[in-house]
Amino acid sequence: MFDRIDHLGVAVAPEDLEDQIALYRDVLGLELVHRETIEEQGVEAVLFDVGENHVELISPLGPDTGVAKFIAKNGPGLHHIAYQTTDIDGALATLQVRGVALIDEQARRGIRNSRVAFVHPKSTGKVLTELTEPAHH
Amino acid sequence: MFDRIDHLGVAVAPEDLEDQIALYRDVLGLELVHRETIEEQGVEAVLFDVGENHVELISPLGPDTGVAKFIAKNGPGLHHIAYQTTDIDGALATLQVRGVALIDEQARRGIRNSRVAFVHPKSTGKVLTELTEPAHH
Repeated sequence: MFDRIDHLGVAVAPEDLEDQIALYRDVLGLELVHRETIEEQGVEAVLFDVGENHVELISPLGPDTGVAKFIAKNGPGLHHIAYQTTDIDGALATLQVRGVALIDEQARRGIRNSRVAFVHPKSTGKVLTELTEPAHH
Repeated sequence: MFDRIDHLGVAVAPEDLEDQIALYRDVLGLELVHRETIEEQGVEAVLFDVGENHVELISPLGPDTGVAKFIAKNGPGLHHIAYQTTDIDGALATLQVRGVALIDEQARRGIRNSRVAFVHPKSTGKVLTELTEPAHH
């Protein structure tokens, strides 16, 4: 169902975003490949390549966003894991048959025109889990 | 410095471990490839393949272990990210030159006879970060 880990999402406070970009780029040596404001998800997102995987820094656009609430509750840090698939519709149908609660029953637009959907963490041991179908595959 | 995400570590309470194994294997469809008690780290660890990446469930062996304390404070869920390298000694030296605080200044034995070292989360935006050099590469 999944080909690889697409990315690991890291929640970053807006005031720390430039420092965290410098950390991943200049200290950990990852290549910054994309930066995008995703209004629908209320985040500024910054993608780094690690081989065929990515790290995605997400910083909230405002205090009422999900990521801002996450940071207020948990502090910054690991936020979600995303698995990559070439058939997100099929994967969502399979998960539903297997009794998984989905936040997104239908895929929606994600970063770089990917199609994405989130699984409810109550079905995944509190791990916020995303499915991602890249735009080009 | 890093070739890919080696694995994402997920902290699991001992009483939930079998249910979480069933989740990753039977619901998310990942292949269970390895299971090991790592006394030095105080965990039972279970590895699943996702392409060339892995998910590692870690369950504490006792209440005084680091992972037990993590779960007591944060609840179960995302615990650490591990990057894969073919030269962990070189990577550790590079990170030290760049001012990163290391939990392990020298690599030690990890799962499946890998060599591993942890970076201090104070240097990585609260994200517990591991370097992994697999035994066979």
